[in-house]
Amino acid sequence: MPVIAADLGGTKLALAVVTAQAELLLQKEILLNKETDAGDTVCNAIAGLLEETASLNIPVAGVGICVPGIYRRSEKTVWAPNIPGWDNYPLYNKIKAVTGRRPLYIESDRSCYIMGEQWQGAAKGCTDAIYLAIGTGIGAGILSEGRILKGANDIAGAVGWLTAEGPVHGSSNLEAFASGEGIARTAGELLATENTYTGALREKSPDTLTAHDVFAAYENNDALARKVLAQSIVLWGKAAANLISIFNPQKIIFGGGVFGPAIRFIPAIADETKKWAQPVSMQQVSIEASALGKAAGLYGAGLLALQSLD
Amino acid sequence: MPVIAADLGGTKLALAVVTAQAELLLQKEILLNKETDAGDTVCNAIAGLLEETASLNIPVAGVGICVPGIYRRSEKTVWAPNIPGWDNYPLYNKIKAVTGRRPLYIESDRSCYIMGEQWQGAAKGCTDAIYLAIGTGIGAGILSEGRILKGANDIAGAVGWLTAEGPVHGSSNLEAFASGEGIARTAGELLATENTYTGALREKSPDTLTAHDVFAAYENNDALARKVLAQSIVLWGKAAANLISIFNPQKIIFGGGVFGPAIRFIPAIADETKKWAQPVSMQQVSIEASALGKAAGLYGAGLLALQSLD
Repeated sequence: MPVIAADLGGTKLALAVVTAQAELLLQKEILLNKETDAGDTVCNAIAGLLEETASLNIPVAGVGICVPGIYRRSEKTVWAPNIPGWDNYPLYNKIKAVTGRRPLYIESDRSCYIMGEQWQGAAKGCTDAIYLAIGTGIGAGILSEGRILKGANDIAGAVGWLTAEGPVHGSSNLEAFASGEGIARTAGELLATENTYTGALREKSPDTLTAHDVFAAYENNDALARKVLAQSIVLWGKAAANLISIFNPQKIIFGGGVFGPAIRFIPAIADETKKWAQPVSMQQVSIEASALGKAAGLYGAGLLALQSLD
Repeated sequence: MPVIAADLGGTKLALAVVTAQAELLLQKEILLNKETDAGDTVCNAIAGLLEETASLNIPVAGVGICVPGIYRRSEKTVWAPNIPGWDNYPLYNKIKAVTGRRPLYIESDRSCYIMGEQWQGAAKGCTDAIYLAIGTGIGAGILSEGRILKGANDIAGAVGWLTAEGPVHGSSNLEAFASGEGIARTAGELLATENTYTGALREKSPDTLTAHDVFAAYENNDALARKVLAQSIVLWGKAAANLISIFNPQKIIFGGGVFGPAIRFIPAIADETKKWAQPVSMQQVSIEASALGKAAGLYGAGLLALQSLD
């Protein structure tokens, strides 16, 4: 029996009815208004989809939701840094009011991404694979010997905090350098110090510069953009190497908004990874881009509900 | 029913009969001669212990062996870098010849250490804990949600390969800096470059200098030893931080030959860890020394056999 899957982001909500055959039916996308309560938007959208499936005689067995942060299983609350007021948001109880007796499952986006890739994407057939989600922030969904790793209190996979050092900043962490925000900030810092640079990024204000601007400048062989992304490639490669040495996985999958435009760098990242990873584990791993792109969270949330209902 | 546990190191072999109540009976320690085949030594010692238990009417249900390297489950062979000729050694079949119909279990030392600590040491009651084994080399035994993490091909936990940077070397890995050998090598390199240094380590040849010498000099407030160990403390702290951010564990346990003398640094290591780890996970973890010391491998090998026989 199909389920409803919802993928909640910081700025939009995607929904679909997901069948056991991995079809996505009745797909919807709703932009989130920062003034509205995102919880109410999710409730209303799920309620609307439940009505629509009822009118079409599509039975729905349960609901799975992918959230942009951490789901605390014991408290049934969500911490989502990019949704205002969601430090400890009672999403489960809010949604339960509209799903009624249908089972409801909530999971962090990084866990949903690797579940989606395992089901229908780059990690198909894998028992051990890691999804490196590199967007505004950085996190990892970790599939280890067939199970999604959650840690003692559901915060496992916080790889944005991995220690990192680079020529541009000094010591910091991976997210500060090589997330979407990190790339923008690094470029802004370089603008302030590289006085001889006169390229396209000079036109931008360091405060409003985005990773998108950096990638656009890279297209035109911009020196500052090249410098920022060269550092990111090294740090993505080292992060992949560390995860390979620790987990001995079959796949490392790069995804999230930055991969996207950074997919072209995967061969260069793999070259960097080879310099650092445990060499036998390195031979056994494949480094790839997400096969599902933006749909990974929706597939993952669907599988979450379908699996739990088995 | 008790089991025989064997803890094979690079230079010696420890054995005991281990009861379900965690008593170690008939303990033995045998020095390994580099000229002898370590496999034969283990076979003979287990055969001898089987005879002794038979003569004492102690029934033995199975055998567990902790090896200083990787046990490849599919091939039933051992890779042990410090035992000559053990690139792909058929230990299982060798030992099976003396254990007969009794079940035989083999596991890497790092996995045995964390199993031992979980059973009778610092990780008692934990579902998520990591044993950082810092001796000649560096590895981690990882307990995640109640299971020992092995990876796709049994090489998980190779944290000696974690990328590391320090003022003394440049970019390298954790083992090159902060293992027993890494500490000795770093001190040797400093001796070559710090020409004004006239302390006790100056008397040593850089080629034969050991970590033990560095710790002995540290006791006397030696400047070069302090510099080497200050770098190690930072790198141990960062490694612990990275494992905390990735795994969200309840405990990080420092063990191995270096902890030992480096146990005194655990508060300083924890201070460094706090600078880098995911802050919520940091609040949930305790950083401790091994409670079992040199017996961790024997307890782990015992539990390995006892658990599998359940």
